[in-house]
Amino acid sequence: MKVACVVEYVGTAFHGSQYERDVRTVQGELNKTLEKIFKQHVKTDMAGRTDAGVHANYQVFSFKRINKRMTEKNIKEALNSLLPKDMHVRDVWFTSDVFNPRSCATKRIYQYFIFNNPEKNIFLRDKVWWFPYPLDVEKMREAARYLEGYHDFTSFVSKDKNDDRSPWRLVYRIRIVRISKFILVRVEGKSYLKRMVRNIVGTLVKVGAGTWDPAYVKEILEMKDRRKAGATAPAHGLYLYRIYFTDGSS
Amino acid sequence: MKVACVVEYVGTAFHGSQYERDVRTVQGELNKTLEKIFKQHVKTDMAGRTDAGVHANYQVFSFKRINKRMTEKNIKEALNSLLPKDMHVRDVWFTSDVFNPRSCATKRIYQYFIFNNPEKNIFLRDKVWWFPYPLDVEKMREAARYLEGYHDFTSFVSKDKNDDRSPWRLVYRIRIVRISKFILVRVEGKSYLKRMVRNIVGTLVKVGAGTWDPAYVKEILEMKDRRKAGATAPAHGLYLYRIYFTDGSS
Repeated sequence: MKVACVVEYVGTAFHGSQYERDVRTVQGELNKTLEKIFKQHVKTDMAGRTDAGVHANYQVFSFKRINKRMTEKNIKEALNSLLPKDMHVRDVWFTSDVFNPRSCATKRIYQYFIFNNPEKNIFLRDKVWWFPYPLDVEKMREAARYLEGYHDFTSFVSKDKNDDRSPWRLVYRIRIVRISKFILVRVEGKSYLKRMVRNIVGTLVKVGAGTWDPAYVKEILEMKDRRKAGATAPAHGLYLYRIYFTDGSS
Repeated sequence: MKVACVVEYVGTAFHGSQYERDVRTVQGELNKTLEKIFKQHVKTDMAGRTDAGVHANYQVFSFKRINKRMTEKNIKEALNSLLPKDMHVRDVWFTSDVFNPRSCATKRIYQYFIFNNPEKNIFLRDKVWWFPYPLDVEKMREAARYLEGYHDFTSFVSKDKNDDRSPWRLVYRIRIVRISKFILVRVEGKSYLKRMVRNIVGTLVKVGAGTWDPAYVKEILEMKDRRKAGATAPAHGLYLYRIYFTDGSS
Protein backbone atom coordinates (compact mmCIF):
# COMPACT_ATOMS: atom_id res chain seq x y z
CA MET A 1 0.00 0.00 0.00
CA LYS A 2 1.04 3.57 -0.64
CA VAL A 3 0.26 6.88 1.01
CA ALA A 4 -0.78 9.90 -1.09
CA CYS A 5 -0.25 13.26 0.51
CA VAL A 6 -1.48 16.70 -0.65
CA VAL A 7 0.95 19.46 0.27
CA GLU A 8 0.41 23.23 0.13
CA TYR A 9 3.50 25.45 0.18
CA VAL A 10 4.63 29.06 -0.15
CA GLY A 11 7.37 28.82 -2.76
CA THR A 12 9.32 31.93 -1.75
CA ALA A 13 11.91 30.31 0.51
CA PHE A 14 12.33 27.11 -1.50
CA HIS A 15 14.82 26.32 -4.22
CA GLY A 16 12.01 24.56 -6.12
CA SER A 17 9.97 21.50 -5.25
CA GLN A 18 12.34 18.72 -6.28
CA TYR A 19 15.02 17.36 -3.94
CA GLU A 20 18.51 18.76 -4.47
CA ARG A 21 21.52 18.35 -2.24
CA ASP A 22 22.52 21.25 0.02
CA VAL A 23 19.57 23.53 -0.86
CA ARG A 24 16.15 23.94 0.76
CA THR A 25 13.51 22.17 -1.35
CA VAL A 26 9.91 21.11 -0.69
CA GLN A 27 10.70 17.43 -1.25
CA GLY A 28 13.82 17.72 0.91
CA GLU A 29 11.84 19.16 3.84
CA LEU A 30 9.12 16.53 3.42
CA ASN A 31 11.66 13.66 3.29
CA LYS A 32 13.39 14.99 6.42
CA THR A 33 10.06 15.15 8.27
CA LEU A 34 8.97 11.66 7.14
CA GLU A 35 12.31 10.31 8.34
CA LYS A 36 11.64 11.85 11.78
CA ILE A 37 8.20 10.22 11.95
CA PHE A 38 9.10 6.75 10.62
CA LYS A 39 12.72 6.58 11.88
CA GLN A 40 13.94 5.49 8.44
CA HIS A 41 14.63 6.97 5.03
CA VAL A 42 11.40 7.35 3.04
CA LYS A 43 11.51 7.63 -0.76
CA THR A 44 8.90 10.05 -2.13
CA ASP A 45 7.46 10.63 -5.61
CA MET A 46 5.98 13.95 -6.69
CA ALA A 47 3.24 14.85 -9.19
CA GLY A 48 4.61 18.04 -10.69
CA ARG A 49 7.92 19.83 -10.47
CA THR A 50 7.72 23.54 -9.56
CA ASP A 51 10.54 26.08 -9.90
CA ALA A 52 12.01 28.25 -7.15
CA GLY A 53 9.46 30.85 -6.03
CA VAL A 54 6.45 29.01 -7.50
CA HIS A 55 3.71 28.22 -4.96
CA ALA A 56 1.37 25.24 -4.60
CA ASN A 57 -2.11 24.91 -3.20
CA TYR A 58 -2.10 21.27 -4.17
CA GLN A 59 1.08 19.32 -4.80
CA VAL A 60 0.87 15.55 -4.45
CA PHE A 61 3.54 13.23 -3.04
CA SER A 62 3.40 9.48 -2.53
CA PHE A 63 5.44 7.07 -0.44
CA LYS A 64 5.24 3.50 0.83
CA ARG A 65 3.05 2.89 3.84
CA ILE A 66 5.43 2.03 6.66
CA ASN A 67 3.76 2.08 10.05
CA LYS A 68 0.56 0.05 9.65
CA ARG A 69 -0.92 1.34 12.90
CA MET A 70 -0.98 4.97 11.75
CA THR A 71 -4.25 6.10 10.15
CA GLU A 72 -4.50 8.70 7.37
CA LYS A 73 -5.46 11.28 10.02
CA ASN A 74 -2.48 10.29 12.23
CA ILE A 75 -0.05 10.81 9.36
CA LYS A 76 -1.56 14.17 8.44
CA GLU A 77 -1.34 15.42 12.01
CA ALA A 78 2.18 14.11 12.57
CA LEU A 79 3.38 15.84 9.39
CA ASN A 80 1.66 19.14 10.18
CA SER A 81 3.12 19.26 13.67
CA LEU A 82 6.67 18.84 12.32
CA LEU A 83 6.75 20.53 8.90
CA PRO A 84 8.13 24.10 8.56
CA LYS A 85 5.69 27.04 8.63
CA ASP A 86 5.64 27.50 4.85
CA MET A 87 4.36 23.95 4.23
CA HIS A 88 1.02 22.41 5.16
CA VAL A 89 -0.49 18.99 4.51
CA ARG A 90 -4.09 19.37 3.35
CA ASP A 91 -4.97 15.74 2.90
CA VAL A 92 -3.61 12.20 3.23
CA TRP A 93 -5.13 9.04 1.81
CA PHE A 94 -4.11 5.40 1.37
CA THR A 95 -3.91 4.13 -2.18
CA SER A 96 -2.67 1.13 -4.13
CA ASP A 97 0.94 0.14 -4.68
CA VAL A 98 0.76 1.08 -8.37
CA PHE A 99 -0.09 4.70 -7.62
CA ASN A 100 2.54 7.17 -8.80
CA PRO A 101 1.48 10.83 -8.72
CA ARG A 102 3.63 11.70 -11.73
CA SER A 103 2.39 9.03 -14.14
CA CYS A 104 -1.20 8.77 -12.81
CA ALA A 105 -1.99 12.49 -13.14
CA THR A 106 -4.50 13.14 -15.94
CA LYS A 107 -4.99 16.85 -15.36
CA ARG A 108 -2.90 19.55 -13.71
CA ILE A 109 -4.33 23.02 -13.12
CA TYR A 110 -2.07 26.04 -12.67
CA GLN A 111 -3.28 29.48 -11.64
CA TYR A 112 -1.36 32.66 -12.33
CA PHE A 113 -2.19 35.89 -10.47
CA ILE A 114 -1.45 39.29 -12.00
CA PHE A 115 -1.97 42.33 -9.75
CA ASN A 116 -3.02 44.85 -12.36
CA ASN A 117 -2.90 48.16 -10.54
CA PRO A 118 -0.87 51.37 -11.11
CA GLU A 119 0.36 51.43 -7.47
CA LYS A 120 2.29 48.50 -6.06
CA ASN A 121 1.20 46.66 -2.92
CA ILE A 122 3.98 45.48 -0.64
CA PHE A 123 1.64 43.08 1.19
CA LEU A 124 1.31 41.05 -2.02
CA ARG A 125 5.06 40.89 -2.69
CA ASP A 126 6.19 37.37 -3.70
CA LYS A 127 2.54 36.28 -4.08
CA VAL A 128 1.41 37.93 -7.36
CA TRP A 129 3.01 39.55 -10.40
CA TRP A 130 2.56 43.32 -10.19
CA PHE A 131 1.83 44.67 -13.68
CA PRO A 132 1.04 48.42 -13.51
CA TYR A 133 -0.17 49.08 -17.09
CA PRO A 134 -3.69 48.47 -18.45
CA LEU A 135 -4.44 44.98 -19.77
CA ASP A 136 -7.25 44.06 -22.16
CA VAL A 137 -8.64 40.80 -20.78
CA GLU A 138 -10.87 40.25 -23.82
CA LYS A 139 -7.82 40.26 -26.13
CA MET A 140 -5.93 37.94 -23.79
CA ARG A 141 -8.85 35.51 -23.95
CA GLU A 142 -8.88 35.64 -27.73
CA ALA A 143 -5.14 34.91 -27.84
CA ALA A 144 -5.46 32.08 -25.31
CA ARG A 145 -7.90 30.25 -27.58
CA TYR A 146 -5.05 29.52 -30.04
CA LEU A 147 -3.14 27.72 -27.31
CA GLU A 148 -5.95 25.38 -26.30
CA GLY A 149 -5.69 21.89 -27.80
CA TYR A 150 -2.84 19.58 -28.74
CA HIS A 151 0.11 21.64 -30.04
CA ASP A 152 3.86 21.69 -30.50
CA PHE A 153 4.77 24.18 -27.73
CA THR A 154 8.43 24.64 -28.74
CA SER A 155 7.96 28.45 -28.73
CA PHE A 156 6.86 28.26 -25.10
CA VAL A 157 9.60 26.07 -23.61
CA SER A 158 12.65 27.25 -21.72
CA LYS A 159 14.66 24.27 -22.83
CA ASP A 160 17.16 22.35 -20.79
CA LYS A 161 20.10 21.00 -22.80
CA ASN A 162 19.38 17.45 -21.72
CA ASP A 163 15.59 17.59 -22.07
CA ASP A 164 14.69 15.57 -25.13
CA ARG A 165 10.98 15.14 -24.38
CA SER A 166 8.46 15.75 -27.14
CA PRO A 167 7.35 19.41 -27.36
CA TRP A 168 3.74 18.34 -27.97
CA ARG A 169 1.37 18.99 -25.10
CA LEU A 170 -2.39 18.92 -24.56
CA VAL A 171 -3.93 22.08 -23.06
CA TYR A 172 -7.58 21.45 -22.19
CA ARG A 173 -8.54 25.00 -21.42
CA ILE A 174 -7.27 28.49 -20.55
CA ARG A 175 -9.62 30.71 -18.55
CA ILE A 176 -8.89 34.36 -17.85
CA VAL A 177 -10.94 36.39 -15.39
CA ARG A 178 -10.61 39.81 -13.83
CA ILE A 179 -11.39 39.85 -10.10
CA SER A 180 -11.24 43.43 -8.86
CA LYS A 181 -7.58 44.53 -9.32
CA PHE A 182 -6.40 41.01 -10.14
CA ILE A 183 -6.27 39.04 -13.35
CA LEU A 184 -6.33 35.29 -12.93
CA VAL A 185 -5.02 33.07 -15.73
CA ARG A 186 -6.03 29.47 -15.18
CA VAL A 187 -4.43 26.80 -17.34
CA GLU A 188 -5.75 23.25 -17.40
CA GLY A 189 -3.53 20.72 -19.12
CA LYS A 190 -2.43 17.12 -19.01
CA SER A 191 1.23 17.96 -18.42
CA TYR A 192 3.62 20.80 -19.19
CA LEU A 193 7.09 21.57 -20.44
CA LYS A 194 9.67 23.62 -18.56
CA ARG A 195 8.30 27.12 -17.71
CA MET A 196 5.49 26.58 -20.21
CA VAL A 197 2.76 28.22 -18.10
CA ARG A 198 4.95 31.24 -17.26
CA ASN A 199 5.92 31.62 -20.94
CA ILE A 200 2.24 31.47 -21.92
CA VAL A 201 1.37 34.15 -19.33
CA GLY A 202 4.27 36.37 -20.47
CA THR A 203 2.96 36.11 -24.03
CA LEU A 204 -0.70 36.75 -23.10
CA VAL A 205 0.39 39.89 -21.20
CA LYS A 206 2.12 41.18 -24.36
CA VAL A 207 -1.24 40.80 -26.12
CA GLY A 208 -3.21 42.32 -23.24
CA ALA A 209 -0.89 45.34 -23.16
CA GLY A 210 -1.52 45.90 -26.88
CA THR A 211 2.01 45.07 -28.13
CA TRP A 212 0.78 42.08 -30.14
CA ASP A 213 -2.47 41.15 -31.86
CA PRO A 214 -4.23 38.09 -30.44
CA ALA A 215 -3.84 36.29 -33.79
CA TYR A 216 -0.05 36.66 -33.59
CA VAL A 217 -0.05 33.94 -30.92
CA LYS A 218 -1.05 31.43 -33.60
CA GLU A 219 2.03 32.49 -35.59
CA ILE A 220 4.24 32.19 -32.51
CA LEU A 221 3.12 28.57 -32.11
CA GLU A 222 3.81 27.85 -35.80
CA MET A 223 7.30 29.43 -35.76
CA LYS A 224 8.50 26.89 -33.14
CA ASP A 225 11.04 29.38 -31.81
CA ARG A 226 11.25 30.32 -28.13
CA ARG A 227 12.60 33.79 -29.02
CA LYS A 228 9.33 34.72 -30.76
CA ALA A 229 7.11 34.40 -27.65
CA GLY A 230 6.96 36.76 -24.66
CA ALA A 231 9.38 36.79 -21.73
CA THR A 232 8.88 34.30 -18.90
CA ALA A 233 6.43 35.73 -16.33
CA PRO A 234 7.89 35.87 -12.78
CA ALA A 235 7.74 32.67 -10.72
CA HIS A 236 6.03 34.31 -7.72
CA GLY A 237 2.65 34.76 -9.50
CA LEU A 238 2.28 31.03 -10.24
CA TYR A 239 0.38 28.45 -8.17
CA LEU A 240 0.04 24.72 -8.79
CA TYR A 241 -3.67 24.68 -8.01
CA ARG A 242 -5.05 21.16 -8.48
CA ILE A 243 -4.17 17.70 -9.80
CA TYR A 244 -6.53 14.95 -10.91
CA PHE A 245 -5.61 11.26 -11.21
CA THR A 246 -6.70 8.28 -13.31
CA ASP A 247 -8.08 6.26 -10.43
CA GLY A 248 -10.36 9.06 -9.36
CA SER A 249 -8.03 10.06 -6.51
CA SER A 250 -7.81 13.83 -6.25
CA MET B 1 8.59 74.16 5.80
CA LYS B 2 8.15 70.51 6.64
CA VAL B 3 7.63 67.37 4.59
CA ALA B 4 4.87 64.89 5.50
CA CYS B 5 5.35 61.38 4.24
CA VAL B 6 2.85 58.48 4.23
CA VAL B 7 4.58 55.13 4.63
CA GLU B 8 3.13 51.65 4.17
CA TYR B 9 5.04 48.72 5.70
CA VAL B 10 4.82 44.98 6.33
CA GLY B 11 5.57 44.76 10.05
CA THR B 12 6.88 41.17 10.08
CA ALA B 13 10.60 41.90 9.80
CA PHE B 14 10.60 45.06 11.95
CA HIS B 15 11.24 45.41 15.65
CA GLY B 16 8.40 47.96 15.74
CA SER B 17 8.05 51.37 14.11
CA GLN B 18 10.06 53.53 16.50
CA TYR B 19 13.81 53.98 16.19
CA GLU B 20 15.92 51.81 18.48
CA ARG B 21 19.65 51.26 18.38
CA ASP B 22 20.95 48.01 16.86
CA VAL B 23 17.58 46.63 15.76
CA ARG B 24 15.69 46.97 12.47
CA THR B 25 12.87 49.51 12.86
CA VAL B 26 10.68 51.38 10.36
CA GLN B 27 11.92 54.78 11.54
CA GLY B 28 15.52 53.53 11.51
CA GLU B 29 15.24 52.40 7.87
CA LEU B 30 13.53 55.66 6.89
CA ASN B 31 16.18 57.79 8.62
CA LYS B 32 18.97 55.83 6.93
CA THR B 33 17.33 56.34 3.52
CA LEU B 34 16.74 60.09 4.10
CA GLU B 35 20.39 60.45 5.09
CA LYS B 36 21.40 58.83 1.77
CA ILE B 37 19.20 61.27 -0.17
CA PHE B 38 20.05 64.49 1.67
CA LYS B 39 23.64 63.65 2.70
CA GLN B 40 22.95 64.69 6.28
CA HIS B 41 21.20 63.34 9.37
CA VAL B 42 17.42 63.97 9.16
CA LYS B 43 15.31 63.99 12.33
CA THR B 44 11.87 62.42 11.81
CA ASP B 45 8.63 62.50 13.81
CA MET B 46 6.02 59.76 13.61
CA ALA B 47 2.22 59.78 14.05
CA GLY B 48 1.65 56.48 15.82
CA ARG B 49 3.92 53.90 17.37
CA THR B 50 3.34 50.31 16.22
CA ASP B 51 4.72 47.17 17.89
CA ALA B 52 6.88 44.49 16.31
CA GLY B 53 4.85 42.53 13.75
CA VAL B 54 2.12 45.19 13.39
CA HIS B 55 1.59 46.42 9.82
CA ALA B 56 0.72 49.84 8.44
CA ASN B 57 -1.15 50.92 5.36
CA TYR B 58 -0.79 54.52 6.43
CA GLN B 59 1.87 55.64 8.90
CA VAL B 60 2.85 59.32 8.77
CA PHE B 61 6.34 60.76 9.29
CA SER B 62 7.44 64.38 9.08
CA PHE B 63 10.84 66.01 8.69
CA LYS B 64 12.30 69.41 7.81
CA ARG B 65 12.43 70.29 4.14
CA ILE B 66 16.12 70.30 3.22
CA ASN B 67 16.69 70.37 -0.52
CA LYS B 68 14.46 73.16 -1.85
CA ARG B 69 14.78 71.99 -5.45
CA MET B 70 13.18 68.62 -4.81
CA THR B 71 9.42 68.48 -5.41
CA GLU B 72 7.00 66.28 -3.47
CA LYS B 73 7.09 63.81 -6.37
CA ASN B 74 10.92 63.83 -6.44
CA ILE B 75 11.09 62.97 -2.74
CA LYS B 76 8.53 60.17 -3.09
CA GLU B 77 10.42 58.65 -6.00
CA ALA B 78 13.83 58.97 -4.36
CA LEU B 79 12.54 57.27 -1.22
CA ASN B 80 10.80 54.45 -3.09
CA SER B 81 13.88 53.67 -5.14
CA LEU B 82 16.03 53.31 -2.00
CA LEU B 83 13.74 51.94 0.73
CA PRO B 84 13.74 48.19 1.53
CA LYS B 85 11.12 45.95 -0.12
CA ASP B 86 8.83 45.83 2.92
CA MET B 87 8.38 49.63 2.97
CA HIS B 88 6.66 51.86 0.44
CA VAL B 89 5.96 55.60 0.38
CA ARG B 90 2.37 56.21 -0.73
CA ASP B 91 2.34 59.98 -0.58
CA VAL B 92 4.49 63.03 0.18
CA TRP B 93 3.29 66.57 0.73
CA PHE B 94 4.76 69.87 1.94
CA THR B 95 3.24 71.34 5.06
CA SER B 96 3.87 74.09 7.60
CA ASP B 97 6.66 74.18 10.18
CA VAL B 98 4.21 73.63 13.04
CA PHE B 99 3.05 70.26 11.67
CA ASN B 100 3.83 67.34 13.93
CA PRO B 101 2.14 64.06 12.99
CA ARG B 102 1.89 62.94 16.61
CA SER B 103 0.22 66.02 18.10
CA CYS B 104 -1.77 67.06 15.01
CA ALA B 105 -3.52 63.70 14.53
CA THR B 106 -7.23 63.92 15.37
CA LYS B 107 -8.24 60.42 14.33
CA ARG B 108 -6.35 57.15 13.94
CA ILE B 109 -8.01 54.11 12.38
CA TYR B 110 -6.75 50.61 13.05
CA GLN B 111 -7.98 47.49 11.26
CA TYR B 112 -7.66 44.00 12.67
CA PHE B 113 -8.08 40.94 10.42
CA ILE B 114 -9.22 37.61 11.84
CA PHE B 115 -9.12 34.63 9.46
CA ASN B 116 -12.07 32.67 10.82
CA ASN B 117 -11.77 29.29 9.12
CA PRO B 118 -11.31 25.74 10.48
CA GLU B 119 -8.32 25.06 8.19
CA LYS B 120 -5.25 27.29 8.33
CA ASN B 121 -3.88 29.08 5.27
CA ILE B 122 -0.10 29.34 5.08
CA PHE B 123 -0.29 32.09 2.45
CA LEU B 124 -1.86 34.40 5.05
CA ARG B 125 0.74 33.65 7.72
CA ASP B 126 1.95 36.86 9.48
CA LYS B 127 -0.86 38.86 7.81
CA VAL B 128 -4.00 37.81 9.74
CA TRP B 129 -4.88 36.10 13.01
CA TRP B 130 -6.05 32.56 12.28
CA PHE B 131 -8.95 31.72 14.63
CA PRO B 132 -10.42 28.30 13.76
CA TYR B 133 -13.56 28.26 15.97
CA PRO B 134 -16.94 29.84 15.14
CA LEU B 135 -17.39 33.51 16.07
CA ASP B 136 -20.72 35.28 16.51
CA VAL B 137 -20.22 38.67 14.86
CA GLU B 138 -23.54 40.01 16.13
CA LYS B 139 -22.47 39.43 19.74
CA MET B 140 -19.06 41.00 19.08
CA ARG B 141 -20.84 44.10 17.74
CA GLU B 142 -23.03 44.27 20.81
CA ALA B 143 -19.97 44.05 23.09
CA ALA B 144 -18.09 46.67 21.06
CA ARG B 145 -20.82 49.23 21.67
CA TYR B 146 -19.79 49.42 25.36
CA LEU B 147 -16.29 50.46 24.34
CA GLU B 148 -17.33 53.34 22.10
CA GLY B 149 -17.09 56.77 23.74
CA TYR B 150 -14.80 58.35 26.34
CA HIS B 151 -13.74 55.74 28.91
CA ASP B 152 -11.06 54.78 31.40
CA PHE B 153 -9.39 51.94 29.44
CA THR B 154 -7.22 50.64 32.31
CA SER B 155 -8.54 47.09 31.74
CA PHE B 156 -7.32 47.24 28.14
CA VAL B 157 -3.76 48.55 28.64
CA SER B 158 -0.60 46.47 28.70
CA LYS B 159 1.11 48.93 30.99
CA ASP B 160 4.72 50.00 30.88
CA LYS B 161 6.23 50.74 34.31
CA ASN B 162 7.19 54.24 33.27
CA ASP B 163 3.98 55.08 31.40
CA ASP B 164 2.03 57.51 33.59
CA ARG B 165 -0.35 58.79 30.90
CA SER B 166 -4.05 59.07 31.70
CA PRO B 167 -5.97 55.84 30.98
CA TRP B 168 -8.89 57.83 29.51
CA ARG B 169 -9.29 57.56 25.76
CA LEU B 170 -11.92 58.53 23.19
CA VAL B 171 -13.08 55.74 20.84
CA TYR B 172 -15.30 57.20 18.11
CA ARG B 173 -16.51 53.95 16.66
CA ILE B 174 -15.89 50.20 16.39
CA ARG B 175 -17.18 48.47 13.25
CA ILE B 176 -17.12 44.71 12.81
CA VAL B 177 -17.85 43.06 9.48
CA ARG B 178 -17.57 39.56 8.10
CA ILE B 179 -16.09 39.42 4.61
CA SER B 180 -16.19 35.82 3.40
CA LYS B 181 -13.85 33.88 5.76
CA PHE B 182 -12.48 37.04 7.37
CA ILE B 183 -13.71 39.17 10.23
CA LEU B 184 -12.57 42.77 10.14
CA VAL B 185 -12.57 44.81 13.36
CA ARG B 186 -12.15 48.49 12.60
CA VAL B 187 -11.43 50.84 15.49
CA GLU B 188 -11.61 54.60 15.07
CA GLY B 189 -10.18 56.63 17.93
CA LYS B 190 -8.36 59.84 18.75
CA SER B 191 -5.36 58.06 20.28
CA TYR B 192 -4.63 54.77 22.04
CA LEU B 193 -2.81 53.25 24.97
CA LYS B 194 -0.23 50.48 24.72
CA ARG B 195 -1.71 47.38 22.96
CA MET B 196 -5.20 48.80 23.48
CA VAL B 197 -6.57 47.73 20.08
CA ARG B 198 -5.15 44.20 20.39
CA ASN B 199 -6.55 43.89 23.92
CA ILE B 200 -9.96 45.05 22.67
CA VAL B 201 -9.85 42.46 19.85
CA GLY B 202 -8.77 39.70 22.25
CA THR B 203 -11.75 40.56 24.45
CA LEU B 204 -14.26 40.77 21.57
CA VAL B 205 -13.13 37.34 20.38
CA LYS B 206 -13.88 35.91 23.85
CA VAL B 207 -17.41 37.27 23.41
CA GLY B 208 -17.72 36.05 19.82
CA ALA B 209 -16.62 32.56 20.84
CA GLY B 210 -19.34 32.47 23.48
CA THR B 211 -17.08 32.50 26.58
CA TRP B 212 -18.43 35.84 27.78
CA ASP B 213 -21.71 37.69 27.40
CA PRO B 214 -21.54 40.98 25.49
CA ALA B 215 -22.65 42.89 28.61
CA TYR B 216 -19.66 41.56 30.55
CA VAL B 217 -17.46 43.98 28.57
CA LYS B 218 -19.13 46.86 30.41
CA GLU B 219 -18.10 45.22 33.70
CA ILE B 220 -14.55 44.70 32.46
CA LEU B 221 -14.29 48.45 31.76
CA GLU B 222 -15.62 49.27 35.22
CA MET B 223 -13.29 46.87 37.05
CA LYS B 224 -10.24 48.80 35.77
CA ASP B 225 -8.12 45.66 35.92
CA ARG B 226 -6.09 44.39 32.95
CA ARG B 227 -6.41 40.79 34.17
CA LYS B 228 -10.21 40.85 33.68
CA ALA B 229 -10.11 41.45 29.90
CA GLY B 230 -9.14 38.98 27.17
CA ALA B 231 -5.60 38.09 26.13
CA THR B 232 -3.76 40.39 23.72
CA ALA B 233 -4.58 39.44 20.12
CA PRO B 234 -1.46 38.63 18.02
CA ALA B 235 0.40 41.58 16.48
CA HIS B 236 0.33 40.19 12.93
CA GLY B 237 -3.45 40.75 12.46
CA LEU B 238 -3.21 44.50 13.14
CA TYR B 239 -2.89 47.29 10.56
CA LEU B 240 -2.57 51.03 11.17
CA TYR B 241 -5.04 51.94 8.45
CA ARG B 242 -5.49 55.71 8.31
CA ILE B 243 -4.67 58.94 10.17
CA TYR B 244 -6.46 62.28 9.95
CA PHE B 245 -4.96 65.62 11.01
CA THR B 246 -6.26 68.97 12.34
CA ASP B 247 -5.19 71.03 9.36
CA GLY B 248 -7.10 68.79 6.97
CA SER B 249 -3.91 67.01 5.89
CA SER B 250 -4.52 63.31 5.53
